[in-house]
Amino acid sequence: MAQDTIKLGDYLFTRLRQLGVESMFGVPGDYNLRLLDFVTPAGLHWVGNCNELNAAYAADGYGRIKGLAALITTYGVGELSALNGIAGAYAENTPVVHIVGTPPRPLQDARTFMHHTFSDGDYRRFAAMSIHITAAQSRIVDSTTAPEKIDWILQQALIHNKPVYLEVPDDMPDVLVSAANLKTKITVPAPPCSAQEPQVLAQILERIYQAERPFILVDGESTGLGIVDQLDALIKATGWPTWTSVYGKGLADEQLPNVYGLYAGGFGDDAAKAYFEEADLVLTFGPHYSDTNSYFYTTVPKPKVAITFSGSNIQIKDETFRDMSARNILSHILENLDSTKLVKLTGPPKTKLTIDTNTPDTDALGQTNFYPLVNPLFKEGDIILTETGTAAHGGRNFTLPSKSRLFGAVTWLSIGFMLPATLGTALAQREQNANTISKAQTILFIGDGSLQMTAQEISVMIREKLNIVIFIINNDGYTIERVIHGRKQAYNDVPFWRHAHALTYFGAGEEHAAANTFQARTVGELKGVLADERISNGSGVRLVEVFMDREDVQGALLYLLNKQLAQERVEEEKEKGQK
Amino acid sequence: MAQDTIKLGDYLFTRLRQLGVESMFGVPGDYNLRLLDFVTPAGLHWVGNCNELNAAYAADGYGRIKGLAALITTYGVGELSALNGIAGAYAENTPVVHIVGTPPRPLQDARTFMHHTFSDGDYRRFAAMSIHITAAQSRIVDSTTAPEKIDWILQQALIHNKPVYLEVPDDMPDVLVSAANLKTKITVPAPPCSAQEPQVLAQILERIYQAERPFILVDGESTGLGIVDQLDALIKATGWPTWTSVYGKGLADEQLPNVYGLYAGGFGDDAAKAYFEEADLVLTFGPHYSDTNSYFYTTVPKPKVAITFSGSNIQIKDETFRDMSARNILSHILENLDSTKLVKLTGPPKTKLTIDTNTPDTDALGQTNFYPLVNPLFKEGDIILTETGTAAHGGRNFTLPSKSRLFGAVTWLSIGFMLPATLGTALAQREQNANTISKAQTILFIGDGSLQMTAQEISVMIREKLNIVIFIINNDGYTIERVIHGRKQAYNDVPFWRHAHALTYFGAGEEHAAANTFQARTVGELKGVLADERISNGSGVRLVEVFMDREDVQGALLYLLNKQLAQERVEEEKEKGQK
Repeated sequence: MAQDTIKLGDYLFTRLRQLGVESMFGVPGDYNLRLLDFVTPAGLHWVGNCNELNAAYAADGYGRIKGLAALITTYGVGELSALNGIAGAYAENTPVVHIVGTPPRPLQDARTFMHHTFSDGDYRRFAAMSIHITAAQSRIVDSTTAPEKIDWILQQALIHNKPVYLEVPDDMPDVLVSAANLKTKITVPAPPCSAQEPQVLAQILERIYQAERPFILVDGESTGLGIVDQLDALIKATGWPTWTSVYGKGLADEQLPNVYGLYAGGFGDDAAKAYFEEADLVLTFGPHYSDTNSYFYTTVPKPKVAITFSGSNIQIKDETFRDMSARNILSHILENLDSTKLVKLTGPPKTKLTIDTNTPDTDALGQTNFYPLVNPLFKEGDIILTETGTAAHGGRNFTLPSKSRLFGAVTWLSIGFMLPATLGTALAQREQNANTISKAQTILFIGDGSLQMTAQEISVMIREKLNIVIFIINNDGYTIERVIHGRKQAYNDVPFWRHAHALTYFGAGEEHAAANTFQARTVGELKGVLADERISNGSGVRLVEVFMDREDVQGALLYLLNKQLAQERVEEEKEKGQK
Repeated sequence: MAQDTIKLGDYLFTRLRQLGVESMFGVPGDYNLRLLDFVTPAGLHWVGNCNELNAAYAADGYGRIKGLAALITTYGVGELSALNGIAGAYAENTPVVHIVGTPPRPLQDARTFMHHTFSDGDYRRFAAMSIHITAAQSRIVDSTTAPEKIDWILQQALIHNKPVYLEVPDDMPDVLVSAANLKTKITVPAPPCSAQEPQVLAQILERIYQAERPFILVDGESTGLGIVDQLDALIKATGWPTWTSVYGKGLADEQLPNVYGLYAGGFGDDAAKAYFEEADLVLTFGPHYSDTNSYFYTTVPKPKVAITFSGSNIQIKDETFRDMSARNILSHILENLDSTKLVKLTGPPKTKLTIDTNTPDTDALGQTNFYPLVNPLFKEGDIILTETGTAAHGGRNFTLPSKSRLFGAVTWLSIGFMLPATLGTALAQREQNANTISKAQTILFIGDGSLQMTAQEISVMIREKLNIVIFIINNDGYTIERVIHGRKQAYNDVPFWRHAHALTYFGAGEEHAAANTFQARTVGELKGVLADERISNGSGVRLVEVFMDREDVQGALLYLLNKQLAQERVEEEKEKGQK
């Protein structure tokens, strides 16, 4: 009986399509061109990026919205340029399939001294590098095992919520493989119900009913646990005071009266901190305890009050129950919850990012007045990205509309990431909103130092006709590094650029570029820009350059700056003493 | 007795200074700021790049001229972005010291979940990745062993002529270490004289005296063998016909009557090929046999006529003599050479890159007329860089002035490399020529696709006030990929940019930018640009955008294009047949 077959390239891209991938990122290269032939015919939108790092960043952004992303690079030169982006996806849990077009099998088998190698016959060293930054790796070598290998690697990306690595030799996209598996969509196996589950569930419910001062903390790994919708139900059902981490920002609807936005531990609102310290139950979902995301671990609850849902574990006080599904447990909690037994309470007063209405329009723009002024721009469904640096710190206190998302500096903190990530999220947003929220925007806040890393990707945003507003915070260099160390050092400077020429240089229509490039140095100027219909309700890429002082920082960054200033004073005194 | 001590940061940078490093590339980051404090005080020039890949590329370019380069990145996010550039330095033999500022030892020892990690306590995975693409690795961990470790790693870079990897924890630049070693400069140990040397020398001299049709091929690894000056003497002493590979281009003085420039094997000049095929002795120096550098291995001589000097081997016919020093052998050859015993002969006629003087000025610019028109621009001491793609192919046939260098597409072929490499070579050129050739220029030829990868580094060229002319060959996308595969495919397109705005955007003085941006579409227009004093003898960064057809190629690329066109015809016929 004739087997139902399909070309390998078609198989791979059909699988990705089945999982919701609609756009594909990457850069063409000698060893992936034959694979690229299959992208458009498979119904995928090809996004040719300016370079591979930008492509990886864009794929990460896309995957954060869509739940899966794919990236194609070429062997050696291409894949290595993407590694930092893949590592970032690993650190912050985005399933990105990194597909590498490798040299044809005959050349690899003969250990031919080809370009894009070290001319020594070793074809395995670059794959070995990716092992350290991906959850799984697969190398297609023949038509028989190819479908299983592809299915396995895609499933691994979904199970681990991490990037994976897939090698496709340049002589294989045309090879016929079995199409049999295609009838069944790849799924993530549901975790078996643990024998301990009834006991754990009972303990949790008991603690919930006993709580007099409960605190809900939604952290970013909740996305990977698949519990964001359940958390919404829990937050509504309990009415309990709820905060998010930096990473969880946007996962709880900040329009609900009991959702406070960011909990910044020892570096934030005093009332929230006091409430947290006195809480008798802290329910933490999807914790991610890097120094940055946990404000130097000050958002980690004391074990005696903690119930924590992470990965396949649930921790109650000092006890860890393994092989538990947060999703299973939460659905049981929600089913069994007796709301009459829940404490009814109001948390501390909600603070809102505001600006004194008497602020003169002539005031210079700075970290303290900029973010409250911009906040009302956001609408339902918007995606907001705040690049590592002052932007990420300022953006943490935005109040978000419903159904909007915010991406900030979580753990990887690779400057330059947010600009291509903005491209990726905007594409994903357009695909998801095609039939719903048509006027949603993607809004990027980025410093001048970070922007220089990956600025060329603005040209792809323009080509893709995406609705993006870019706020460039021009504070004359790496302000975040200045406050950490080397306040006056020249190594924290960046070259001077004329940002107002960006849209023209990167290929926007000349009329569009002229009409959609703005600058603001004062409160009044910014108000004018924000009132402009082209910003609030325009289209295409728009650019607003705002100017701030080199050392203008707030929050945790101000703490670092003051520490450095104090150190400088000590050294000055020491020097005086020595004279 | 008190030991003579020095701070670690001072020690490291003093060592680099002793080896001729004067500029340092990199990007600041959280874990390298304290090390950066030592750069300028050590008398090094800090070049802050726009991103780490660009910094690595620039360091590679710098190292190709100066013999050693250094690059500083930060742990994780910084170092991973640089890996493709480090791998390229490995593939093409540039000793680049990749210094990574790592988290302070207390954080590493405690396996703290810090940013720029995967928040899992594992601090070793990124170093493990670099093992695959560096010749040696060293991790500074204490003050006692630090000086020896630093000396060892720098020596490894010089011995292997490859990149190396050095980790400096952020709490260590201030630590005191012994200064004792500093009195002795780090050197590469001279290879011992092999017992076989007299026999090998005798064999070589005999073959040289017997030769009636000798052929000298200078390949690029001659630089690492330290024999470039000796080869110059040999070429002059014998007067024998001499060619170079792509990689060796510029290592033999093309102004000498017997130096022909590039030997392109089966893809080049027929007379040269005929001479090569009939040669009874082919002396090859520093061979590098990648497909691209050897024109698909057609420049590799038949064993029976070959004497090949490579690494620590000398190959005569089928016999390989190991542990031989090419430099030792060559000095003995030069000392003992009896010129009366050498065949006197004239090689095939020299071809020169020329353009028909009757070419109308209205002719469109293309690959065949562009390079001969530009060639007379080059002056003694100029450095010419030709990016992978049509530029590298066209630039291979330039005739170079004395003391000038050319860098082209050898083996790594990572597009985007040449622009930051131009920054690096221009800096090195300025340092080397400070007291000699003051008007030397660095001239880059790059396609519009490659340019988009790393364009932002133009802003650093501008800030550094370097004398650079950039020719952008705007042929509307990845022409080199189009001829390999996917001639009409959209994936070989690139976004539209207005290159004429580059200098303004990237911060040149507005007057300078307006006066130093040129465009040319025809022979006449290009002649006008080249006659302009600002191009031939100007200063700062100048930009010339030349327009060519999407499929305008020559040489080996034309061969590939024709192959694809023939394949298309076959498929068309097949389709017709099926109808």
